[in-house]
Amino acid sequence: MTILAGEVDTEIQQQLLTRFRRVRSETEQLADPLSAEDMQLQSMPDASPTKWHLAHTSWFFETFVLLPRLPGYRQFDADFHHLFNSYYNSLGTPFSRPQRGLLSRPDLDSVFAYRQTVDRCIDGLLAEYPVTPELEALITLGLNHEQQHQELLLTDIKHAFSINPILPAYLDSAPDDDVPGRVEESSWLQIPGGVYSIGGEGEHFFFDNESPAHQQLLQDFRIASRLVSNGEYREFIEDGGYREPRLWLSDGWAQVQQNRLEHPLYWQKREGRWYQFTLAGLQPLVDPEPVCHLNYYEADAFATWSGARLPTEFEWEVAACLLRKPDQLAGANLLEKRAFRPLAASAGQAQFLGDLWEWTSSAYQPYPGFRASSDAVGEYNGKFMCNQKVLRGGSCITPAEHIRMSYRNFFYPHQSWQFTGIRLAGD
Amino acid sequence: MTILAGEVDTEIQQQLLTRFRRVRSETEQLADPLSAEDMQLQSMPDASPTKWHLAHTSWFFETFVLLPRLPGYRQFDADFHHLFNSYYNSLGTPFSRPQRGLLSRPDLDSVFAYRQTVDRCIDGLLAEYPVTPELEALITLGLNHEQQHQELLLTDIKHAFSINPILPAYLDSAPDDDVPGRVEESSWLQIPGGVYSIGGEGEHFFFDNESPAHQQLLQDFRIASRLVSNGEYREFIEDGGYREPRLWLSDGWAQVQQNRLEHPLYWQKREGRWYQFTLAGLQPLVDPEPVCHLNYYEADAFATWSGARLPTEFEWEVAACLLRKPDQLAGANLLEKRAFRPLAASAGQAQFLGDLWEWTSSAYQPYPGFRASSDAVGEYNGKFMCNQKVLRGGSCITPAEHIRMSYRNFFYPHQSWQFTGIRLAGD
Amino acid sequence: MTILAGEVDTEIQQQLLTRFRRVRSETEQLADPLSAEDMQLQSMPDASPTKWHLAHTSWFFETFVLLPRLPGYRQFDADFHHLFNSYYNSLGTPFSRPQRGLLSRPDLDSVFAYRQTVDRCIDGLLAEYPVTPELEALITLGLNHEQQHQELLLTDIKHAFSINPILPAYLDSAPDDDVPGRVEESSWLQIPGGVYSIGGEGEHFFFDNESPAHQQLLQDFRIASRLVSNGEYREFIEDGGYREPRLWLSDGWAQVQQNRLEHPLYWQKREGRWYQFTLAGLQPLVDPEPVCHLNYYEADAFATWSGARLPTEFEWEVAACLLRKPDQLAGANLLEKRAFRPLAASAGQAQFLGDLWEWTSSAYQPYPGFRASSDAVGEYNGKFMCNQKVLRGGSCITPAEHIRMSYRNFFYPHQSWQFTGIRLAGD
Amino acid sequence: MTILAGEVDTEIQQQLLTRFRRVRSETEQLADPLSAEDMQLQSMPDASPTKWHLAHTSWFFETFVLLPRLPGYRQFDADFHHLFNSYYNSLGTPFSRPQRGLLSRPDLDSVFAYRQTVDRCIDGLLAEYPVTPELEALITLGLNHEQQHQELLLTDIKHAFSINPILPAYLDSAPDDDVPGRVEESSWLQIPGGVYSIGGEGEHFFFDNESPAHQQLLQDFRIASRLVSNGEYREFIEDGGYREPRLWLSDGWAQVQQNRLEHPLYWQKREGRWYQFTLAGLQPLVDPEPVCHLNYYEADAFATWSGARLPTEFEWEVAACLLRKPDQLAGANLLEKRAFRPLAASAGQAQFLGDLWEWTSSAYQPYPGFRASSDAVGEYNGKFMCNQKVLRGGSCITPAEHIRMSYRNFFYPHQSWQFTGIRLAGD
Repeated sequence: MTILAGEVDTEIQQQLLTRFRRVRSETEQLADPLSAEDMQLQSMPDASPTKWHLAHTSWFFETFVLLPRLPGYRQFDADFHHLFNSYYNSLGTPFSRPQRGLLSRPDLDSVFAYRQTVDRCIDGLLAEYPVTPELEALITLGLNHEQQHQELLLTDIKHAFSINPILPAYLDSAPDDDVPGRVEESSWLQIPGGVYSIGGEGEHFFFDNESPAHQQLLQDFRIASRLVSNGEYREFIEDGGYREPRLWLSDGWAQVQQNRLEHPLYWQKREGRWYQFTLAGLQPLVDPEPVCHLNYYEADAFATWSGARLPTEFEWEVAACLLRKPDQLAGANLLEKRAFRPLAASAGQAQFLGDLWEWTSSAYQPYPGFRASSDAVGEYNGKFMCNQKVLRGGSCITPAEHIRMSYRNFFYPHQSWQFTGIRLAGD
Repeated sequence: MTILAGEVDTEIQQQLLTRFRRVRSETEQLADPLSAEDMQLQSMPDASPTKWHLAHTSWFFETFVLLPRLPGYRQFDADFHHLFNSYYNSLGTPFSRPQRGLLSRPDLDSVFAYRQTVDRCIDGLLAEYPVTPELEALITLGLNHEQQHQELLLTDIKHAFSINPILPAYLDSAPDDDVPGRVEESSWLQIPGGVYSIGGEGEHFFFDNESPAHQQLLQDFRIASRLVSNGEYREFIEDGGYREPRLWLSDGWAQVQQNRLEHPLYWQKREGRWYQFTLAGLQPLVDPEPVCHLNYYEADAFATWSGARLPTEFEWEVAACLLRKPDQLAGANLLEKRAFRPLAASAGQAQFLGDLWEWTSSAYQPYPGFRASSDAVGEYNGKFMCNQKVLRGGSCITPAEHIRMSYRNFFYPHQSWQFTGIRLAGD
Repeated sequence: MTILAGEVDTEIQQQLLTRFRRVRSETEQLADPLSAEDMQLQSMPDASPTKWHLAHTSWFFETFVLLPRLPGYRQFDADFHHLFNSYYNSLGTPFSRPQRGLLSRPDLDSVFAYRQTVDRCIDGLLAEYPVTPELEALITLGLNHEQQHQELLLTDIKHAFSINPILPAYLDSAPDDDVPGRVEESSWLQIPGGVYSIGGEGEHFFFDNESPAHQQLLQDFRIASRLVSNGEYREFIEDGGYREPRLWLSDGWAQVQQNRLEHPLYWQKREGRWYQFTLAGLQPLVDPEPVCHLNYYEADAFATWSGARLPTEFEWEVAACLLRKPDQLAGANLLEKRAFRPLAASAGQAQFLGDLWEWTSSAYQPYPGFRASSDAVGEYNGKFMCNQKVLRGGSCITPAEHIRMSYRNFFYPHQSWQFTGIRLAGD
Repeated sequence: MTILAGEVDTEIQQQLLTRFRRVRSETEQLADPLSAEDMQLQSMPDASPTKWHLAHTSWFFETFVLLPRLPGYRQFDADFHHLFNSYYNSLGTPFSRPQRGLLSRPDLDSVFAYRQTVDRCIDGLLAEYPVTPELEALITLGLNHEQQHQELLLTDIKHAFSINPILPAYLDSAPDDDVPGRVEESSWLQIPGGVYSIGGEGEHFFFDNESPAHQQLLQDFRIASRLVSNGEYREFIEDGGYREPRLWLSDGWAQVQQNRLEHPLYWQKREGRWYQFTLAGLQPLVDPEPVCHLNYYEADAFATWSGARLPTEFEWEVAACLLRKPDQLAGANLLEKRAFRPLAASAGQAQFLGDLWEWTSSAYQPYPGFRASSDAVGEYNGKFMCNQKVLRGGSCITPAEHIRMSYRNFFYPHQSWQFTGIRLAGD
């Protein structure tokens, strides 16, 4: 296949190309501290190897953009089609998910060659051919998909490293020492009830699960001014939170007993002091920082213990929109800040965007009028609308460009390897 | 303990006593076709032995009514307190649920003696002491609790019998032969959007999970005029419904593959013809009758295949209330009809109440402002508000007195041993 | 079918009939203290309900004696053939073993009717037809088979009762109080090496796995004068036996860790004192009595801790034969003594026969020249000759008539619900 | 630590050093075709990553030789002690075996540096210090240990590659095409009964489990003149061998049903033709070559189907010794031949040594008088003497120096990822 270097002749093409290169490059930068051995790790079925993320995100562009739209494009490698499909059953049986860590071949170099071929061909496609709205939409979808995998790449490698007794650090350097000694008391923000607009609409990108925009009738509620901190969660533990069944949902209590849970994932006590495993290795627990890596059951039990509850996803969206600052992302702790951990809220900072994904009490269900699209890309979101909970707001490893008030993330209640935290609400 | 035979002096007392005796007696009538051996069967952790249901419903009255409220009442047997507690962790560790079938002792006679003692003492309590609103509420709660177990008693023994290769029948006689040859075509009932009142309120009994009554904003929708029939579901099977992943929720497809599902629970094919196991033993499948014993994934996949969807619980409640007849229960196929199976809809019959519990797309979550009560009885509903789906409308084995438009039943999406069916909806 | 009452005309017929009636009657006597509910209990896949034992032993006579040999005999019930087959794959797929406890039907009365029909027909067969050697052999095999199930009936109900928190007793009365305060020190019996005859031969009955009789070359060894006692095993526990991996076989240590084992099955500590669950309910642990219900790993670890080892099955047989008294069964603690538990050795009593099955270090393998018979009855022993260990000597619940020096019992190393114990050996 | 370069002054030192270097170098040559990613693969708990084998064999020398015997030696890295311990519980809790594939760190370079340090220090130890018999014994043990891991390295990577849908080849080139079209008919070799010496004795190295040498009394038997071939095993399959329960041991039949087995591990049928996965990738099945990668149950079922049986380990050893040629290893298909697969027997070749490990019917048990040594090295063999079967004779990937007639290998009956095969025997 030869791609003639054509002139990029429109602003949209140029913007799309720039963004494409930036997002694709960011993925590789995130993988940069890792060796070929690291990039093959898969520590549980929920997680995937870095190498697989690198390949699968390219597979997406190859499958949905290059093969149907770039004349003359030939598959990079027929095996890759099977190996790096994720859950698109309509495109054939995907390779067994729990065994992704067993793919030493194709090797890392081949995967990078795959990326480069895909990048070069997308470059060529954007240079040579008119950018139709459909093409723009597909590439934008592919980039948002890649940004999701950027976040997974980091949470998956964090989990894999946590299994290794030598507790490797992803980051070279430890975090700054000047962590704040305290954080402001949490206060309640009052929000009046009424009919509110919910969901994504307009020109900017949003996932199908954020639509259709629609109205929700809410009652008066209140919501906390910041995330729950490590210190507050420590009180819950010390008060016997993990031993009192009345605080827990039934399924949560079963999980506590079965796994003998006594503290959040990544916490450990050494000689009477709490530490937590982070992307910078094992670090002393910092009380004012937001508590993270909780599953839904822990978040709910903490809320019950506090005499509060978790917000619904609608309450969250309404509160976050009403309270947002003019430049909502300024100062938000997102991927670009490169903190790689949640940070203690500074005075007046509400932390709706960034720091941690916030568990809402809402089950992940379709919005009224939702229709999954009927093509393979349409397998994307609808099929997961059962048994999961909605999380809102993005985390310290979410790209700034990827988050918005209407964004609906979703995980199973028992999962805790994402950067998840708690914001309280009440009636 | 001696109970003086006093005069029942008020209408409320008399009504409560009459109802108490009737409900308690109904439970024993339902157990009547079963032997002591049958009553000990437990075929899976989700199900319980009949004997256990007989005892546990009595335990409820003993624990929450007699012990705290009848002066001088002494526990019937201290062991029963542990053995027949269900999931009230606040009252001590319940006996391991999957092992309820291993309790050959206490024997059935002792359990009936337990029932008689409890009945006699409640009689005495109602005769001797003033019926406070709290007492009336507790007894009413206990009776509703018992009615729930009446239904479970039947579904649990049905499941247990289905494991036995000789396929025992609970009912002596086979169903009537004059089953209708056909059922009217299903049509769409149009319901306009708007703000509707949802939930239980007023003087009659409802469970805490039906409250608070509140407003929901709905969009225009349509809902099917009757339940989906066996014949319609057979078309889904014959069209390859169990082999097409695009029709299924992700978790549902995983279950189909893992268990190699090809048809509903209790269906079996013999020499090219479909049969289903019923409380009257193995019977030929009757096309016009409503399809039953589906799990949520099957209901959802069928709806997708049909180009429709399942209703939300709010849509269901609004439609059922709008369309109800003056005497909504007249003709409904509920327990008192003693059909013990869903029946083909007769002309104009909407089947909202009775026949089958209808899966809604709504996750089982608290209504706005819901607070679980803080005592042990309050463990009742709130702790299950995660991972389950709401079902509405009651079934052919639900007592008429126990069902109402606002009633919220709930089961896990994978469960199918209840009398569950499908009503379609659309935008 | 009619059986003409004929004259029993030979001594063999009379003896066989007498024995048949006695053994069959014994099974029913052993079941006598149990209710229909008790007789349906199955507490684990390894165990079977009493009702199943009652039926399966009759199935054996029906299948291998009556159907092929009694002219005109018709199956009692075709379903029974499938339900009460154990593992004879050549006779069709047996009913799923772990679900035997779910057979409430056929009910207990039908099973007793089945027994009576079989008994009556065997009576008729023996009265009417000549007793060929083949018939005598088959009936004798059937009776030995039934005696094996007598023992299993007791160990299975013991296990089932042990799960019930109220710890029911099979026996009405507690054991005598006059238990000995002490037992003689164990001493070593020296046995010279040489070539010894091993196995069953001659006219009396033995199982195929005891043959062919053959020669084994043994080295000098020594063997303990009695079984290991509870008190001795308690010292092992108190010395940290369950916490020291060096004492354990690799698979045994894995089991200790996985199940958090700290003591034998049926032992429990209450307020600082040891008890054990017995057929007479929970009883204080009696130090001089033999320690029982050990699995092979525990027996082996105790032997290692003691600086000794377990005997091979050949050493056991040679020692037991050399040391036997003229009337070896006199005073032995077997089923007929109705002690239902192992007893402290009295002075000079070697306990080779009775009290407890003794784990040997020998894997259960065929003797040189062993051939399984090729008919269905031949499925009996050979197919289990892998992964199991040989036990010797019978137990306190083995019928006297059923045990002999060459008898080879076999269980998996992890199993402990039989009456199993330890005899030490050394080089 | 400094090692003075001393003179190697004795022949023993020189021989030991030469052998040490050769064996250690061989391990690295076997790893040479693999990438760092390949070397991290762990496809099941039974297998280990190549990197782990490289490290663990060095850990053995460091732990048992350098630390106790080289003055001034300091641990290479304290973490390695924990990470690369295998099952020596007496040296601390080993790292979780099923998670060895999750150790991306230490990286491969560090493991090679570890090997080099250990090699250099052993060189220094042998150069500087007198070689006591104890030291010689320990180093010889370490080299034999390393040779065991050479074989595991190959079988483990073969298994890991077999999971990958692209079926990678360990070997660059396919095998020669000139495979023999046929193999001589198998014949029976008659061996007279008698008392034979069994086991390892004398000056050369043998493992503790081969001792003590002792006498076994054998009956007349016969043994096949070569291994069973693929073609013969294919007949067993085509005759319905995997569908006939009477041919199988009970545990084997359970495994066949549970895993729906229909052919040996690594066989697959494509378009009506059999292939097998090999170290040279997927290759057409060659009928005359020995059938390999069978588990014990398959070997036993095949023998039963053939009207024969498997030999005991004593029969095997006696036959192999009686029938051996003067230069028994000449022509044997062992690791040094670099065939990496079993080869069809040439005329007159008995294949006792090399080609495939031969399942014997003998359970892996201690020889009479066996005592495990009491130090940590003594954990080596005795603790596995339960639930496993003895295999004899070495395979096509066993180093020639590592095999001998008395060698006892052992695996669980269900395991088939070793190069295992069948030799028939009879009475």
